Amino acid sequence: MRAIVYDGHLHYVGAYPDPKATSGWARIRVLKAGICTTDIEIIRGYKGFKGVLGHEFVGVVDCHCPKGGDPDWTGKRVVGEINVGCGVCEYCAHGLQRHCPQRKALGILDLDGCMADYCVLPVSNLHLIPASMPDNIAVFVEPLSAALEILEQVELTGFERAVVLGDGRLGILCAWTLLTALSDVTLIGHHREKLEKARWRGVKTQLEFPAGMEGNVDIVVEAAGSTRGLGDAVALCRPRGTVVLKSTVASEISVDLSPVVVNELTLVGSRCGRFETGLRMLESYPDMPIERLISAEYPIEEASAAFEMAVQPDTLKVLIDIAEKG
Amino acid sequence: MRAIVYDGHLHYVGAYPDPKATSGWARIRVLKAGICTTDIEIIRGYKGFKGVLGHEFVGVVDCHCPKGGDPDWTGKRVVGEINVGCGVCEYCAHGLQRHCPQRKALGILDLDGCMADYCVLPVSNLHLIPASMPDNIAVFVEPLSAALEILEQVELTGFERAVVLGDGRLGILCAWTLLTALSDVTLIGHHREKLEKARWRGVKTQLEFPAGMEGNVDIVVEAAGSTRGLGDAVALCRPRGTVVLKSTVASEISVDLSPVVVNELTLVGSRCGRFETGLRMLESYPDMPIERLISAEYPIEEASAAFEMAVQPDTLKVLIDIAEKG
Repeated sequence: MRAIVYDGHLHYVGAYPDPKATSGWARIRVLKAGICTTDIEIIRGYKGFKGVLGHEFVGVVDCHCPKGGDPDWTGKRVVGEINVGCGVCEYCAHGLQRHCPQRKALGILDLDGCMADYCVLPVSNLHLIPASMPDNIAVFVEPLSAALEILEQVELTGFERAVVLGDGRLGILCAWTLLTALSDVTLIGHHREKLEKARWRGVKTQLEFPAGMEGNVDIVVEAAGSTRGLGDAVALCRPRGTVVLKSTVASEISVDLSPVVVNELTLVGSRCGRFETGLRMLESYPDMPIERLISAEYPIEEASAAFEMAVQPDTLKVLIDIAEKG
Repeated sequence: MRAIVYDGHLHYVGAYPDPKATSGWARIRVLKAGICTTDIEIIRGYKGFKGVLGHEFVGVVDCHCPKGGDPDWTGKRVVGEINVGCGVCEYCAHGLQRHCPQRKALGILDLDGCMADYCVLPVSNLHLIPASMPDNIAVFVEPLSAALEILEQVELTGFERAVVLGDGRLGILCAWTLLTALSDVTLIGHHREKLEKARWRGVKTQLEFPAGMEGNVDIVVEAAGSTRGLGDAVALCRPRGTVVLKSTVASEISVDLSPVVVNELTLVGSRCGRFETGLRMLESYPDMPIERLISAEYPIEEASAAFEMAVQPDTLKVLIDIAEKG
């Protein structure tokens, strides 16, 4: 099959071995995949992963090895949760496969990813896509669910004002999801064009660090991925407020955490979310301008060009088109 | 009056001006005061405070300027909350004077402290001490309440295993308070003698960083005040667990926060607590060996010797005896 592979270098490979679905797993013919910051970190060598890249996708189940009384998923259009847990530990028992110490993760950890003609996942990871939802929206279920994880982790009762730092893909999705729960949401970034695309319903945008907002924000989401993001977030947050850490900064950062203690802030690390909530939000807010976030789309053969585009500062989402032609 | 004053240097002053109680405030004749890490930070110049030091005390109300229908507190033995809010802002309205943006704080911010014959505080900050409670225990209400703040901030349901990093005064009090809520509490420190004093009921102690505990602890309290404390705490904490930041490290620290995001940890900054809970705990656990934490006691005139003793690595609490003799 065709695949985008990282083995120390990024390659398009025309004849990578097809994956096999074992008992309880399905093989998915991938239609579209998205490039995420994690993929970019991998090709910069930060994660130690080697194999087929990619974990954001929409596809059609190609074959399914049913276990027990599983219904047959063959032919269904699906998205898939990316973490595969051991199935028996305490985390897996609570639906937290993403924290299983033995987990694999699609295109990230011990499991080939979705930037290929086929990938495999357990059937329990799959979610059916409504027929009315275009592929170009369905491929956003993974990052949108990651943004929605904030609403699952943080009790927002009594909160009014939110600030999101960072006008990248994830920052914009975080601002949109917060707006479904809070009335006053401001996205702060450095790119005029991205900020324009972020304006949906009442989301406010700002090019500069806001004067007079310091110490007045109930919840600040750090999605800038810069080394100074955390310090800025702490400065904006009111006493007893919450700072959500949504981006992993690959290097050590130097930070003065004494305001966290003095102001009794809560810092919440936040990663993947449940796909049910992402799918529900896409259905509840059909006016959410998700497709605005697509900066470009490349055929799988043009892997290098796609990744070069993805790292440009003005780029939002880059999609990989994997559907076979003709 | 006699006072311990910081004006760029630490002094004992034999004739400092007596403070005056204004409407709604009381003047307290101080019996005992405790030296806290914050006092040590002040004499190292970190806080910018100048004036009479000290915020941990027990004393007797000397005179009271009642406002409206206040009962007369004169002659009562009391401890006092250290933060004085504006009384009208949103934080003050919720009993969170300690987060009022206009607050003063006894011996820390714009208000002379308690290491003197007299200090003044609003009557609403005072708490009556039961007759049966010795001065040497009552003076611990402030730091014990700070430790108990953890139980107010963190929902411990479902938590079993706690680790406290740091065998200083606050670390030991945190371990004792956690033991009232959880069955498995380990204090980790570097001083054999302090760790011995920390053993109360089931509290376990350890001299070394524990092998095999990484990623397995539900709640880790960082009370070591060292620059590597946070990194250690994050490494010990299980996915979705909680790290409490109890010590302010005066300098910037360099830390890799990506495990906080990947493991979706919650970091909670924690400072002062409510005195009601500290007093209640002292009454509920009369066997709690608080007096073990007193390393030495000095008359107010020997301020320099007292502070020199307080900064020794093996010292726990140093008290200042202020009761007038004869």
